[in-house]
Amino acid sequence: MAWIGLDIGGTKVYGAVVENEKIKAEAKRSTPSEGGPEAIIDALVGVVADLGGAKRVKGIGIGAPGLIDRKKGVLRHAPNLLAWVDETPLGPPLSALLGDVPVALGNDVEVGVLGEHRLGAARGLKNVIGMWLGTGVGGGFVADGDIHRGSHGLAGEIGHTIVHHNGRECGCGGRGHLEAYAGRRSLERRAREEAAQGRQTLLVELAGEERMKSSIFAKALEAGDPLTVEMIDEAIEAVAITVASMNTFLDLDMVVLGGGMGGRLGDFLAPRIAEQARPLMFVAGAEVRIAPSELGDAAGAAGAALMAAAAL
Amino acid sequence: MAWIGLDIGGTKVYGAVVENEKIKAEAKRSTPSEGGPEAIIDALVGVVADLGGAKRVKGIGIGAPGLIDRKKGVLRHAPNLLAWVDETPLGPPLSALLGDVPVALGNDVEVGVLGEHRLGAARGLKNVIGMWLGTGVGGGFVADGDIHRGSHGLAGEIGHTIVHHNGRECGCGGRGHLEAYAGRRSLERRAREEAAQGRQTLLVELAGEERMKSSIFAKALEAGDPLTVEMIDEAIEAVAITVASMNTFLDLDMVVLGGGMGGRLGDFLAPRIAEQARPLMFVAGAEVRIAPSELGDAAGAAGAALMAAAAL
Repeated sequence: MAWIGLDIGGTKVYGAVVENEKIKAEAKRSTPSEGGPEAIIDALVGVVADLGGAKRVKGIGIGAPGLIDRKKGVLRHAPNLLAWVDETPLGPPLSALLGDVPVALGNDVEVGVLGEHRLGAARGLKNVIGMWLGTGVGGGFVADGDIHRGSHGLAGEIGHTIVHHNGRECGCGGRGHLEAYAGRRSLERRAREEAAQGRQTLLVELAGEERMKSSIFAKALEAGDPLTVEMIDEAIEAVAITVASMNTFLDLDMVVLGGGMGGRLGDFLAPRIAEQARPLMFVAGAEVRIAPSELGDAAGAAGAALMAAAAL
Repeated sequence: MAWIGLDIGGTKVYGAVVENEKIKAEAKRSTPSEGGPEAIIDALVGVVADLGGAKRVKGIGIGAPGLIDRKKGVLRHAPNLLAWVDETPLGPPLSALLGDVPVALGNDVEVGVLGEHRLGAARGLKNVIGMWLGTGVGGGFVADGDIHRGSHGLAGEIGHTIVHHNGRECGCGGRGHLEAYAGRRSLERRAREEAAQGRQTLLVELAGEERMKSSIFAKALEAGDPLTVEMIDEAIEAVAITVASMNTFLDLDMVVLGGGMGGRLGDFLAPRIAEQARPLMFVAGAEVRIAPSELGDAAGAAGAALMAAAAL
């Protein structure tokens, strides 16, 4: 029994076929930045075709970056998808274009954490936090083996928990949130502000007017660019504080780092976060394992397929 | 089917009979501060006698303040019980003294949260944090209806999550923990330090050399004692930050305030914490209900009886 999972990101749509708890095929296409929801749905259909079509699959799961209505299959709000129009149905039109194959809709970070928990770095573990360091910072909590959705389906927003009360301004308008220290968009904004004030940084030299991608942060970090080192140090500290507090309250097996920044910089970040978090734990030296994502770009798509298998 | 619950506190042992999800009787005795574990076990036997004896009950649950071994019924470490000797068995000798009635051992805060969730302020709710503001600050998380124990049975230590990185020193040696701002012992230590440095405060005038009980904080607060007002304001802010972050990540229905300070000052604290937490939430203005304990001193005993009913 095969299932297809689709992960819609701001820059690419990633797809995977999962059968018997194994990833059998992967494919990706660029996410259209114009052309409306139709263009994005066309890209999904294209990825499904690249994966061999929907005929022999039991169903399709989608991880979408935003606020969703699971029951209606509507993507209600998706600020990182430029071509999207709020409140547009996503599941039903995709299903209609693919011969009425059943489609289930989920949140992109939630399916990513599910993928890592079932098939990746955290497989077999009971209590796991997935921390998705991407454009923003998302999260998911696997509690006793199941994703914790909370009382109103809003759980997981670890990026907007408070690290430094009255600290740096977050993109959401709040202050001192984890995302303000560890989200790619926050770091880019800060780099451009500092550059505008005359500070030299490789980040702006490499990115120019374009989006400051994770790969640019990786390059600038490797070159020892002082602003990059300073910001990444702050990010590591912010994540370590969050990990220490959450582990003290929730008693975890592992924290998995995913997302664009987590994927690109995970091997660098993980041991440094663990080292800084350890002395901040209540049980001094508590073993909290911090691991980079194992599935990388495929985590969300694989998790979306698994979500569909469970929901449909 | 009746069950007895016993809650061992630093100053009193509280007992309750629970039958058909209702509290049928309550009793309390002072907790001996000397005489060794035998004296404490004698006090438990006394409370059981006050409740009509163990003959017609199916079993007894105990909430103990410290580190426990559930399987062996051993209270391994209990720093707040002066007469206790670490690693002494508690369940088996009590059972033997009461005609071999089955006895289950649990953590005092965990059974308190269970009591409030099943019979008190949070009954019928799915996702609840119990915050026990007592000598220290303990906690419990009801996730989708069940107590979340974590991967090593160590979950719930909300008092040692970080509110202000590198902030005030906590009794555990850490810095900036919630307990350092909102635990009775931390507040007492700070009041005595400030008094030693010449600051006048009603807290020390009222307490003298004795323990600075919650009732003394209540009196000093009512009288408008400046140091008390300052410290309680800091405590409210610290709890509000914690509540905001936990609600953002876990999506809760309610936070229940229990414990000595929570019981004595809950009506004063709850609306002020809610007011300060609201603007700190990711979903601005998110409805988080902050409620004082409804069962008060009986919460732990009632919860211990319910724990026994479930475990035995």
